[in-house]
Amino acid sequence: MSKDLRESEAASLDNEVLSLLGRHVSVRKFRPDPVSEEQLEAIIQAAQMASTSSNVQAYSVIAVTDPALKSELAALAGNQAYVAECPVFLVWCADLYRLREAAKPHLGGAATYEDSAENFIIATVDTALAAQNAAVAAESLGLGIVYIGGLRNKIAEVAERLGLPELVYPLFGMCLGYPDQSPALRPRLPLPAVLHRDRYDAGETVRQVKAYDATMSEYLRKRTGGAKDTPWSAIMADRLAEPIRLHMKDFLQGKGFLRR
Amino acid sequence: MSKDLRESEAASLDNEVLSLLGRHVSVRKFRPDPVSEEQLEAIIQAAQMASTSSNVQAYSVIAVTDPALKSELAALAGNQAYVAECPVFLVWCADLYRLREAAKPHLGGAATYEDSAENFIIATVDTALAAQNAAVAAESLGLGIVYIGGLRNKIAEVAERLGLPELVYPLFGMCLGYPDQSPALRPRLPLPAVLHRDRYDAGETVRQVKAYDATMSEYLRKRTGGAKDTPWSAIMADRLAEPIRLHMKDFLQGKGFLRR
Repeated sequence: MSKDLRESEAASLDNEVLSLLGRHVSVRKFRPDPVSEEQLEAIIQAAQMASTSSNVQAYSVIAVTDPALKSELAALAGNQAYVAECPVFLVWCADLYRLREAAKPHLGGAATYEDSAENFIIATVDTALAAQNAAVAAESLGLGIVYIGGLRNKIAEVAERLGLPELVYPLFGMCLGYPDQSPALRPRLPLPAVLHRDRYDAGETVRQVKAYDATMSEYLRKRTGGAKDTPWSAIMADRLAEPIRLHMKDFLQGKGFLRR
Repeated sequence: MSKDLRESEAASLDNEVLSLLGRHVSVRKFRPDPVSEEQLEAIIQAAQMASTSSNVQAYSVIAVTDPALKSELAALAGNQAYVAECPVFLVWCADLYRLREAAKPHLGGAATYEDSAENFIIATVDTALAAQNAAVAAESLGLGIVYIGGLRNKIAEVAERLGLPELVYPLFGMCLGYPDQSPALRPRLPLPAVLHRDRYDAGETVRQVKAYDATMSEYLRKRTGGAKDTPWSAIMADRLAEPIRLHMKDFLQGKGFLRR
């Protein structure tokens, strides 16, 4: 099969990459089969090729394979069993520590701005872009993934356990392994809810929620054999009313982020 | 060509997706050829399939094709000509506005937490994951992209010009179009600088910078015909010493983010 997809399929909207992206589902049950070292390295190398702001590459990823450590992290993430069960658990960290240490010898005591909201955003975005490339790469290899935001539940404990220095914070985890389930695709918001033309259309984005509420009620009804059909907007209301992870700002400022 | 890459190439580390991810370069010169509506929709639909925290889908994207508006945004982004020249300029926005408006009818006045650092992170990450899927999708169609962080230079003006309501902020732009240049791949940090095992290795990540400094000096020397060879760590030092975008925290808090 030709590797040069750019030339061979440029004109078509029906290519393998779009098809792969369109099939994404989060996987929460994994076969015990290992992920090879070669696979892991190919996935992280693909992650590294993602865009990065001014080439700062402000992220690190910790591949956790030690079973005891995976179990601890599973507990800290809110008892999500798949964190312990997946063969490799990746902890994606926004990382300005390496940057500051690398810069130090050149600075001669000049003031620096690692602690700005801007640099926090840069590190967070760099990490997310790399992680999403990793997700796509993993799925291209037949592996499944799920992002674990629950890693921020007890973020100080996670950071301590993984030895994260100042200016490094765990943004999310990612389970990696061969899927032992085939979840149904989850419908997304209608395209006009997220895609605006030349100007933000506040009325349209909110109007589109009605159609999505119906879609998601139907999806839930099917998945639960009729037991649940809560509309999306009601689920979102519960979510917004939940005081989750209010420790984040203090934690981040303690790590040297977001101080100005 | 089979669409089921997952089955046909699962065992191989040499597949079209890894190859595409590994070829990524930022494109800053575009042919005038248009991006079709079908291409744009396929790209945004691929973006929508990225993972999203608890299905909040906390992002919007504004496709800017109006030439006058593109020129204005190019100027606001620091006179980056390619923002005006690309046929479609995407403005990726973290968006908690739609979520709050959708939730409102269900809340009966209950307290909500859109203004927490946690929800800021969720919206920012959701946006970045979707954008990276869009980047990969675009490249699979033979298009080129470049992220435009410069959109945060004059972020208040950009937000005003695009009509962004409270709880929406422009995270970055993305030029989209057919490449009119073939930039060389930019080398990334050595794998051991970013990939840690079971625990963050502060010594190793900093040690790896030395090797990368040499790599990047060589890369610059080649690209500039010997005129430049500044090591990466020195460039990073200049960057950290630059007081860029110190308005971000105030701007974000003014938009309703990061207040606690």
